Amino acid sequence: MKIKGKEYRALWFEDNTVKFIDQRKLPYKLDFFTAKNVDDVAFAIKDMVVRGAPAIGAAAVYGMVLGEKNIDDAAEKLRKNRPTAYDLFYAIDYMISKIKKGEDAQKAADAYVEDIIDRCRRIGEHGEKLIKEGMKILTHCNAGALATVDYGTALAPFRVAHNKGKRFFVFADETRPRCQGLLTDWELEQEGIPHAVIVDNAAGFFMRNGEIDMVITGADRIAVNGDFANKIGTYEKAVLANENDIPFYVAAPISTFDKNIKNGGMIEIEQRGREELAVINGKKIMPDWTQVRNPAFDVTPKEYVTGFITENGVIKK
Amino acid sequence: MKIKGKEYRALWFEDNTVKFIDQRKLPYKLDFFTAKNVDDVAFAIKDMVVRGAPAIGAAAVYGMVLGEKNIDDAAEKLRKNRPTAYDLFYAIDYMISKIKKGEDAQKAADAYVEDIIDRCRRIGEHGEKLIKEGMKILTHCNAGALATVDYGTALAPFRVAHNKGKRFFVFADETRPRCQGLLTDWELEQEGIPHAVIVDNAAGFFMRNGEIDMVITGADRIAVNGDFANKIGTYEKAVLANENDIPFYVAAPISTFDKNIKNGGMIEIEQRGREELAVINGKKIMPDWTQVRNPAFDVTPKEYVTGFITENGVIKK
Repeated sequence: MKIKGKEYRALWFEDNTVKFIDQRKLPYKLDFFTAKNVDDVAFAIKDMVVRGAPAIGAAAVYGMVLGEKNIDDAAEKLRKNRPTAYDLFYAIDYMISKIKKGEDAQKAADAYVEDIIDRCRRIGEHGEKLIKEGMKILTHCNAGALATVDYGTALAPFRVAHNKGKRFFVFADETRPRCQGLLTDWELEQEGIPHAVIVDNAAGFFMRNGEIDMVITGADRIAVNGDFANKIGTYEKAVLANENDIPFYVAAPISTFDKNIKNGGMIEIEQRGREELAVINGKKIMPDWTQVRNPAFDVTPKEYVTGFITENGVIKK
Repeated sequence: MKIKGKEYRALWFEDNTVKFIDQRKLPYKLDFFTAKNVDDVAFAIKDMVVRGAPAIGAAAVYGMVLGEKNIDDAAEKLRKNRPTAYDLFYAIDYMISKIKKGEDAQKAADAYVEDIIDRCRRIGEHGEKLIKEGMKILTHCNAGALATVDYGTALAPFRVAHNKGKRFFVFADETRPRCQGLLTDWELEQEGIPHAVIVDNAAGFFMRNGEIDMVITGADRIAVNGDFANKIGTYEKAVLANENDIPFYVAAPISTFDKNIKNGGMIEIEQRGREELAVINGKKIMPDWTQVRNPAFDVTPKEYVTGFITENGVIKK
């Protein structure tokens, strides 16, 4: 991803340390965090210096390189912080297996990270073909380079299309409660891709007024039948796109398809606490008495999906 | 409306002054504002001590009582602050006409305010019949007592049903960008009506999960054919309700039907500035570069409306 004209990744290995873009400070300030040992990497994962399942996996493989001399201890420290992050456990097991086979830890970690990036790049190339000159495209949440080391999933087609000189405009849903739309805003601003942030309430307005030609979102998990879970609000946008005859695409690597989940009804939805709604950027915006219901994700039935943009091509109905 | 167990109105006449619940400070603090003369009332309207078209109309008629000795001057001072508030101009003209006919200004003003309240009370009585024991009901924005002097429109049926001892639960959309859902939260909290605030993104989730049985919103303007304009996001909730076979009602006095507007396409939508998104409760939450698109209202086509709850009864399709 471009930041102030230079190429960056969400994290990288350098001088026997792991460097992170400090996502706790975005979009307000660009700052970096340096992890010198396994404990620092574990802290970065726990404290959300890094977020997004693929990027957390990348942090873990580099953490295992730093902790190579005592892999059981390193694995334990890295595992304990984000219990629901599937990529984290997969990445740690991958490194243990490679190191036990006597393979070079650094090379194994680099291969893991390059593979993630390559899949995102290919998602971008396949998705780019869907973007026509002058299109206006809606995205929800931040399925960007920050969450996947580079390129992103939903944002990858935008990067590729922009680099090819295509002109198009992106509407970024604010994505309450955590406002990850501001991370999308930050990424698109750095790339120079024309865009605007809208409140989640306004997506339907722009669709009905003919100002949105396509929707692209990411996915957290995709069931075998095509139902998928993603950030809360995705279902609303999918229904509205369908109602207004607007194509709705989901960009995700093949690994997001979960063979153990037959349909969306089997996906458990995490319910989070009130602080996520009540506090924005450190400021309390709700009185203490206010009760909330706060589901973090929703499930969108397959009927609303025009196609899945994967590293192997676009899978249509 | 009840506040800490006592009956209040959004504003009232007392000791030759107009007393207001100071809505600039809600929901964080209950405070009052006293207007001793026309200038004070004009300030209260301008500075949003009072908001909501019917409540602004009520402020204006009392302002004319305070300015009775020079009605042209009073009318000019009151008129100039909120140029698009139809009720404001109607209320001022009503008072000029009554005073010129030699009628008692105080009595005329009281009659005007009692008429508003009576219409809201009757909306509440008709709407209450739609609320069945144990129902879960979604509302959007704040069509409450704060905006209409007492009862509210969308919130009136809740007050009446609660006073009759019916048990039900209200989901209050947060309603970004201005978060008027927090005013609804405050009103329902004071009445002791069980409820929770949800982000606008989550309404679809709860509908699809069978947790919402009915939707009631207010309306800013209703076209002759039944299309209506209301706070941004109302269209999204109406489409989602329709998709999930959930009844969608609009609560509004007959005066909201605009004979000069044949259909929703004729309703002009106000576009507002970026500050409304970028600043919450005095705190900046977006970087300075962030561009926004900010339509304040949307239009919901008549097809999505199950019925209009008016002071004369429920008008179904």
